[in-house]
Amino acid sequence: MVMEPDQQATAEGALFTDFYQLTMAQLYYREGLHQLPARFDYFFRNYPDYGSHQAGYCLTAGLDWLLNYLERYRFRDEDLAYLRSATDSRGQRLFAEDFLQYLKEQVSFEALTIRAVPEGRVVHAGAPIAVVEGPLMMAQLLETALLNHLNYPTLIATKASRVKQSAQGEVVIDFGMRRGQERGVNAGARAALIGGVDYSSNTGLSYLLGLPPKGTHAHSLVQTFMALGLGELAAFRAYAALYPDDCLLLVDTVDTLASGLPNALIVFEELRRQGHEPIGVRLDSGDRAFLSIQAAKMLNEAGFAQARIVLSGNLEEFAIWQITTQIESDAPAYGVDPQALIRRLSYGVGTQLMVSGGAAALDGVYKLVAVYERGEWRPAIKLTETPAKTINPGNKALWRLYDRRGKATADLVTLLDEDPRELARLTLHHPVEANTYRNLARAELSGLEPLLQEVFVQGRRAPPASITELRSRAEADLARLDAGVKRLINPHIYHVSLSERLWGLKQQLIAEARGLRPA
Amino acid sequence: MVMEPDQQATAEGALFTDFYQLTMAQLYYREGLHQLPARFDYFFRNYPDYGSHQAGYCLTAGLDWLLNYLERYRFRDEDLAYLRSATDSRGQRLFAEDFLQYLKEQVSFEALTIRAVPEGRVVHAGAPIAVVEGPLMMAQLLETALLNHLNYPTLIATKASRVKQSAQGEVVIDFGMRRGQERGVNAGARAALIGGVDYSSNTGLSYLLGLPPKGTHAHSLVQTFMALGLGELAAFRAYAALYPDDCLLLVDTVDTLASGLPNALIVFEELRRQGHEPIGVRLDSGDRAFLSIQAAKMLNEAGFAQARIVLSGNLEEFAIWQITTQIESDAPAYGVDPQALIRRLSYGVGTQLMVSGGAAALDGVYKLVAVYERGEWRPAIKLTETPAKTINPGNKALWRLYDRRGKATADLVTLLDEDPRELARLTLHHPVEANTYRNLARAELSGLEPLLQEVFVQGRRAPPASITELRSRAEADLARLDAGVKRLINPHIYHVSLSERLWGLKQQLIAEARGLRPA
Repeated sequence: MVMEPDQQATAEGALFTDFYQLTMAQLYYREGLHQLPARFDYFFRNYPDYGSHQAGYCLTAGLDWLLNYLERYRFRDEDLAYLRSATDSRGQRLFAEDFLQYLKEQVSFEALTIRAVPEGRVVHAGAPIAVVEGPLMMAQLLETALLNHLNYPTLIATKASRVKQSAQGEVVIDFGMRRGQERGVNAGARAALIGGVDYSSNTGLSYLLGLPPKGTHAHSLVQTFMALGLGELAAFRAYAALYPDDCLLLVDTVDTLASGLPNALIVFEELRRQGHEPIGVRLDSGDRAFLSIQAAKMLNEAGFAQARIVLSGNLEEFAIWQITTQIESDAPAYGVDPQALIRRLSYGVGTQLMVSGGAAALDGVYKLVAVYERGEWRPAIKLTETPAKTINPGNKALWRLYDRRGKATADLVTLLDEDPRELARLTLHHPVEANTYRNLARAELSGLEPLLQEVFVQGRRAPPASITELRSRAEADLARLDAGVKRLINPHIYHVSLSERLWGLKQQLIAEARGLRPA
Repeated sequence: MVMEPDQQATAEGALFTDFYQLTMAQLYYREGLHQLPARFDYFFRNYPDYGSHQAGYCLTAGLDWLLNYLERYRFRDEDLAYLRSATDSRGQRLFAEDFLQYLKEQVSFEALTIRAVPEGRVVHAGAPIAVVEGPLMMAQLLETALLNHLNYPTLIATKASRVKQSAQGEVVIDFGMRRGQERGVNAGARAALIGGVDYSSNTGLSYLLGLPPKGTHAHSLVQTFMALGLGELAAFRAYAALYPDDCLLLVDTVDTLASGLPNALIVFEELRRQGHEPIGVRLDSGDRAFLSIQAAKMLNEAGFAQARIVLSGNLEEFAIWQITTQIESDAPAYGVDPQALIRRLSYGVGTQLMVSGGAAALDGVYKLVAVYERGEWRPAIKLTETPAKTINPGNKALWRLYDRRGKATADLVTLLDEDPRELARLTLHHPVEANTYRNLARAELSGLEPLLQEVFVQGRRAPPASITELRSRAEADLARLDAGVKRLINPHIYHVSLSERLWGLKQQLIAEARGLRPA
């Protein structure tokens, strides 16, 4: 964290931006283009690919804190003084005074309208997740903040959703503060909680979100008692005495099976005699499939069949899937019911959750799609991209199509003035391939849902939702997503299609930009 | 960012911690152990492994902002009110009032002494990078903040150093704000600048560090002019008119070779006629080895042999190494001198730098190593680890041994009361393998440098160093590191050894803890 409050305000206020946004802003101002109405789209091109496993969807997160940032955006005198001191390679002043005065007096995001997919929704590659409309200069100045606030949380909400899925619905706790990106772990923990993680060890963030923070104890507690000659049992007893109704013991400091579990059982029996029921044990190292089977066996035999077994230590969805798979095959040989064991597991997930292990960044981009001049919107397009990367032009709407089972069957990107609900027959065009499309009768669909909502209009933001609401949204969306798309490995590709009119516009623009007639 | 300043203070103050630190703190308080003198070590076990390439060293970063955090640490009434409201599984209050009063009145980090390797130094796996001594409760409460502030910046300083190495010393600019972990990008940019990146696009952070932020312009600038029917050339002219001495043009919006570069050359010639020299061009997509050769050829033929060619777009050390390797083999066929071309390249490195692509977390840990009781330090040890993970006990010093060439030849971990400078003959013991050691005559060494310095004593921190100083430190250390250890791929393993006394203590403790005599 930076040193003084005003330094933090410097690093996290209006200057929390890539420098080129400011030099471009001045250029637009100087050219009289700063008020030119413009539209930008935010979308990602690829689902996170973790190497050994891949995501088939993402979950949106981060919008609430972005909107907070936008509401408070202003250039302080100190920020302007700094820009006044910026020089070019010849030592000449880079920003003229009239521009700086404009920044001070006129600049806010009030003139922008932002439509976005709200937080906690399932979204797909290539679909516009946020659409920004307003003066070119302000829409440009928004870029860094928008990408910074949306890319990372969306990545983490997605990862959390996958971890929760691999945990088969059992409790997952975020333990990721120590390995994430400094203060960014707060945004990450919030995203994880939206995406399906139940609790976080992050105390302040949990407080802000109205959730109880969770944790057990560290190895250091046991090590202290051992170094003092008091031993692991004394450490466990001290913990149980202080937290008799929250007694969750970390049993792998000395020897999980020969010391940790036997000592925990002694304490659990003492607790029970005093009228308290223990929470369970935590296993933080070793073969956690094998050890959890042995722990279940020992706990069961001692009469603690309800005690939870918390697993932690470099876990993520793939590791959890492997552990539960191994339990399913190995537990019966030890007289342990694998399903009952899986039902009593909880997971502490830290590093791999908070850094999205294997795919540490979402490739979300913010692209100019149109400017308005002489009474019409003029689509903007960038041609050097491969066909798959050519942006979809124009001002768009995003629709989710639900089939007769109520499952999401495709997302459809249309122009803003199209309403596919009015059509008896829909054409879903592949975004790149010319002759790939499918026709769908309206009657085959149980619903068409517009996904983009106005979240920032005239300087006012949509009201924030609670974490509970956001989780419910995510759960509802996941329930309407086909299992194949949710598969942890090699998921089924969900279709994001273009309407016939949008496809036609895109082809026309590519042809015009290349100086050709449409083929 | 969280909503209100007081909410930010909640999320980033004393409650910026894993919850179990607080429950353990209360346990130590209740057991009368809170003042027990304790020692913790911070170290990492593994160098970052990026998959296709691996680090053979790390560069320290993050300490300065950690010390800022420690100096300002206090529990506000609001924090205490929150803890007062925390309940256990039966709804009973978790934290007693006397403990909360203690937190309010007595708690600060003033009683801790922190010795650490300063920022900007080369460090190695297994060596203690920070050693904390003081009351057990405070040393425990430090854990999350210490790991959070040191792990990520050290990871990024390391990555930055590798990128700078692959850039063969040419200018590298951090473009990573948009894909990093929200506010964490400020810590990341600072670490990157310590590690060898020359500039950052992060405006506010550059301001705080006294460096000029850098950037060019985005595709959206060219797209805007094109959508208005004015074209790429008009966009370039507008940029050149406003920034005649900072003219760096992004040439890949339409067609790099057929449009971007020819248009840039027109503008560069116009600039030169007006008495300005252009900075150069930026290539953000496509085969940047091929395109940079073509760009060099065109720039050379037009008389702009000094113009820089800035490469960007998902670059990191391995990609840069591939690009320069391809230039070396392919450039001559186009009449371009490969070395001259490599000397005029600059690199904008974003996502892969800021998330440390391929290795998104450093596995730094903070482990109890000793407690003081009845007049002596009692080493703490944890046995469930594999031998390689068993911690080195006791209070330690860290020495760097330089050979006659002045190159770092090994790091030596000793007990604090050993001074290897006084020995004629040193034994460097392998940290795990019993019979692996080497003897070294003192005369074979040109120097022995103690690496751990007191950085926080009685609540006062060591004075911060400027980014310029930190970079010089890093450069000096890298110059004293063998090329094999710096190799981007499969680096030579640098030895971190134990002194004979430390090795003996470790064996004794393992044996005692296992209830055995030493073998």
